Amino acid sequence: MKVRILVRLKPGVLDPQGRAVHHSLEGLGFDGVEDVRIGRLIELDVADNTSDEQIDQMCQQLLANMVIEDYSIEKLSASEAA
Amino acid sequence: MKVRILVRLKPGVLDPQGRAVHHSLEGLGFDGVEDVRIGRLIELDVADNTSDEQIDQMCQQLLANMVIEDYSIEKLSASEAA
Repeated sequence: MKVRILVRLKPGVLDPQGRAVHHSLEGLGFDGVEDVRIGRLIELDVADNTSDEQIDQMCQQLLANMVIEDYSIEKLSASEAA
Repeated sequence: MKVRILVRLKPGVLDPQGRAVHHSLEGLGFDGVEDVRIGRLIELDVADNTSDEQIDQMCQQLLANMVIEDYSIEKLSASEAA
């Protein structure tokens, strides 16, 4: 089973990397970019019997820093994972 | 308009960060993890008249390293972006 985990900085937490990218996009001449936030994409291939709770625990214990980051979990169907 | 860009290492490119996370998950007692790949999540807030081609150009010129990375673009509807 493919699981996609998106880890983002919490709203309000400064994102200097995003700001640098925003600035660079403007420097390259891309207008109309209002905001850029950078996060992590973690793609897991786990056994089919892995419970939602286990995936949640992985995020809380290792994959996300719960002090400054939020995460969301998306299970991919077989077609999306291809 | 919210746009989500997922940047992943191309298949076959070694992912030491993913391997380290995989190892750590096993160390924490999570069984059944078969593979871990780490990528970047870039969330843009762009003007509504931004064309797909412009977003593509942003990825190719700045956001992804086309030598070793692939990217995919997902436009979020207003409900998903909330």
